[in-house]
Amino acid sequence: MNQERLNKLIEKMDEFNIDGVVLFNEADIRYFSNFKSGGVLIVLKDQVKLFTNRLVYEEARQLLGDRVELGSDLDDIAKFLKSNGVLRVGFDFLRSTYAQIKAFDEFEIVDFTNQTLMLRMIKDRDEINAIRKAAVVARNAFLKVYPYLKPGLTEKEIADELACQLKKHGAEKEAFDTIVATGPNAAYPHHQPTDRKIEEGDFVVIDFGAKVDGYHSDTTYTFLMGKKTDEKRELFNAVFYAQLYSTEMIAPSRTKASEVYKRAKSELAKFGLDKYFIHSLGHGIGLEVHEFPFLNEKNDMVIQPNMVFTIEPGIYIPGKLGIRLEHMVLVKENDTEVIAFTPFMEIM
Amino acid sequence: MNQERLNKLIEKMDEFNIDGVVLFNEADIRYFSNFKSGGVLIVLKDQVKLFTNRLVYEEARQLLGDRVELGSDLDDIAKFLKSNGVLRVGFDFLRSTYAQIKAFDEFEIVDFTNQTLMLRMIKDRDEINAIRKAAVVARNAFLKVYPYLKPGLTEKEIADELACQLKKHGAEKEAFDTIVATGPNAAYPHHQPTDRKIEEGDFVVIDFGAKVDGYHSDTTYTFLMGKKTDEKRELFNAVFYAQLYSTEMIAPSRTKASEVYKRAKSELAKFGLDKYFIHSLGHGIGLEVHEFPFLNEKNDMVIQPNMVFTIEPGIYIPGKLGIRLEHMVLVKENDTEVIAFTPFMEIM
Repeated sequence: MNQERLNKLIEKMDEFNIDGVVLFNEADIRYFSNFKSGGVLIVLKDQVKLFTNRLVYEEARQLLGDRVELGSDLDDIAKFLKSNGVLRVGFDFLRSTYAQIKAFDEFEIVDFTNQTLMLRMIKDRDEINAIRKAAVVARNAFLKVYPYLKPGLTEKEIADELACQLKKHGAEKEAFDTIVATGPNAAYPHHQPTDRKIEEGDFVVIDFGAKVDGYHSDTTYTFLMGKKTDEKRELFNAVFYAQLYSTEMIAPSRTKASEVYKRAKSELAKFGLDKYFIHSLGHGIGLEVHEFPFLNEKNDMVIQPNMVFTIEPGIYIPGKLGIRLEHMVLVKENDTEVIAFTPFMEIM
Repeated sequence: MNQERLNKLIEKMDEFNIDGVVLFNEADIRYFSNFKSGGVLIVLKDQVKLFTNRLVYEEARQLLGDRVELGSDLDDIAKFLKSNGVLRVGFDFLRSTYAQIKAFDEFEIVDFTNQTLMLRMIKDRDEINAIRKAAVVARNAFLKVYPYLKPGLTEKEIADELACQLKKHGAEKEAFDTIVATGPNAAYPHHQPTDRKIEEGDFVVIDFGAKVDGYHSDTTYTFLMGKKTDEKRELFNAVFYAQLYSTEMIAPSRTKASEVYKRAKSELAKFGLDKYFIHSLGHGIGLEVHEFPFLNEKNDMVIQPNMVFTIEPGIYIPGKLGIRLEHMVLVKENDTEVIAFTPFMEIM
């Protein structure tokens, strides 16, 4: 168990005036207990229990001793809560199924949605180190693939090779399914790699990451296959400047997430490209690939030290092309550090 | 859209006397609409709508035309239902978050849990072909790794190489994170690969699969690294016979899932090993790795033609070893076919 993190959760429980929290989300469970293989974590003010099924019970006992109970039946957990005098129970409504919460309807169900994400949003030193490691693994893997990029290679060949290299360089696995989107396919932000071959003049978008020690990296490179034209250079630069200026404007403890989004959007607007920017500007990253804070138009949360998030402006012109540049930003006390750059434009 | 499958769903809706179903599960959405990238699928008796976010909207429109609506806000979907006179709405309580269903509390919420799984349980020809393809890809990938297995290789090295070979042989991705568990680590059924090196005399459990055209394979091989001993041969044979006899006893349209489980368990009991068999005997497989039917002690569902499921008895002796053998069975009208064998015991 990680007592420091649990103490912060218990403070939040006091705020919400609840006796217990029932966590189903694997990332939450790992965050508070260090246990990787899931279960149901019950946090009361004076004790913590992890309920697991038989498949992972032995593994859990080795890590957490008698704080582990065998049983994945929600009724067993309800009995446990009752026997401890619990009345008001907090749940994350976005990270519990309907059935999971319904099983507790004899208790007072309290909306505790996103509260663990609020804690996980501020990273500690170990977490930052793990994300740094993931970013290095991803970069090293990419540097093995980069020299071979050329017209004729398919999206899927590139994605597969990158996945292999990520593991060879120390990733537990890919942070998510690698996106390789070429030419007109790049107009779909979440394109899945196909057998389309790269052609001369294509923009090639590669969005990938490594998972290391449970933590993720997430970066997107866009290359131009072949020679620059003035038009393509301008499109690329618009995205590049949107990324650069929105990153540079961040003043820790002062700037709002929405302001960062708007800075990128207004930069694209200068080129008349803001209508092609169809997603948010970025997201926190950690035990999950998408965490708090979200950098979008509506989120007025203030950017704080020890947040780690992506900044990833993009433009998507249907039927023609797409460009996205994504790097990861670590917020420090007085400034920010870009953990993983997206420095390329052209393949020589 | 797949109208044949939708018609069966609409029959079920009649049974439940509901006006509409709201599906959040990606596999369900793919099954009924052929769309791979998620969203929210609304099925009414006279129309079907897929609500998507902006990221996948263009892709969805290309496939499904004006049956696609832009909007991932649940309020928009509620409005749509209202404007169509919908009163009673079915949800899968195990595959919807609490927040997703709460957003519809102005409607009469009907428990439609597992109903899509009941339909997906009986595979059609295309689905069976996809699973066959996945099994062939997995086998071919494995045959590239098998000759190199030897003492000194780590679990992680084997798992990573297998993942690469799966993709090289045509898998979209791994069906799930490959398990390679050696020696005492194999006593954990869901062990994650570590840097432990294979030693002479180890049992090596490799549980892996391919995803092809959205469908999955799932097989587990157990090898003995080195020479057989009488004791190890007996342990292996016990699991082998449990798999063989439970597979052979299946009479389509007559045998119950629980009977198949019990047959395997009783075979292990002959060797005094049933106490080490700590999970169910198998699970259906298709668009998801774990589907209906589940082969466990309690499930009295009758085994029916065109089901595809795993049979995977195992023994787990804490601190010592584990053995699991898993193959996939296709049920036909009058008999069964093993789609993917687990034929090995020994590395020469």
